[in-house]
Amino acid sequence: MILWADYDSRRASVVDGRSRVDTLDCNRYTRAAERCWFTIDASCLTWEGQQFQGKRAIVEKLSSLPFTKIAHSITAQDHQPTPDCCILSMVVGQLKADDDPIMGFHQSFILKNINDAWVCTNDMFRLALHNFG
Amino acid sequence: MILWADYDSRRASVVDGRSRVDTLDCNRYTRAAERCWFTIDASCLTWEGQQFQGKRAIVEKLSSLPFTKIAHSITAQDHQPTPDCCILSMVVGQLKADDDPIMGFHQSFILKNINDAWVCTNDMFRLALHNFG
Repeated sequence: MILWADYDSRRASVVDGRSRVDTLDCNRYTRAAERCWFTIDASCLTWEGQQFQGKRAIVEKLSSLPFTKIAHSITAQDHQPTPDCCILSMVVGQLKADDDPIMGFHQSFILKNINDAWVCTNDMFRLALHNFG
Repeated sequence: MILWADYDSRRASVVDGRSRVDTLDCNRYTRAAERCWFTIDASCLTWEGQQFQGKRAIVEKLSSLPFTKIAHSITAQDHQPTPDCCILSMVVGQLKADDDPIMGFHQSFILKNINDAWVCTNDMFRLALHNFG
């Protein structure tokens, strides 16, 4: 799964266009969420239809996700520049959380360069279940 | 499927949040693509991994799609404001082109208000096949 902890990697993948397969442990994930260098107060997260805005709300949501381990595989990714000098990315793939079955997912996010740092201003995540709802 | 012909409807669905099920015929689709009021020269389209930029390239691609009839059903949609006063949308659903089997799809796009008109600056489309690649 593309987690907030992965924004540095995502930026790299915009550059090199390669897919990645990673396993993240919960500690790394939580630490990254707490640092929260990658969001701003205007940032929005929509997680399975639930909306969150601002650093605090986003960190609370991400910190509350119930899995302890997660593995993800990116199977397709698209990236575009926007007229406002951001990067729009759409990523699809598969994830496996703890001992749950493998599930498809898709995620779209916008990265914006502010003061020489890339921050995520918008993020939307859905499991692929909804294609068949 | 969310086609370029549907941007007015998409804007409406941003407002009212409802899902829609529509059948579009090819003529309507082609006419709308030719009018091309909904793109600007900076607009980007990524269609199944193929990249197109600018009105002309986008219209050519959309006009060349091989189906004659298409039905679509939106099963989940998310919308967010961006810091640059655009709207980011992610839509998932199912489509049926001509007599092909029903397929899942996901599409992300950005709408920007320019001179009191909503234009699509960025659009990415993928069939849901890629979740299982």
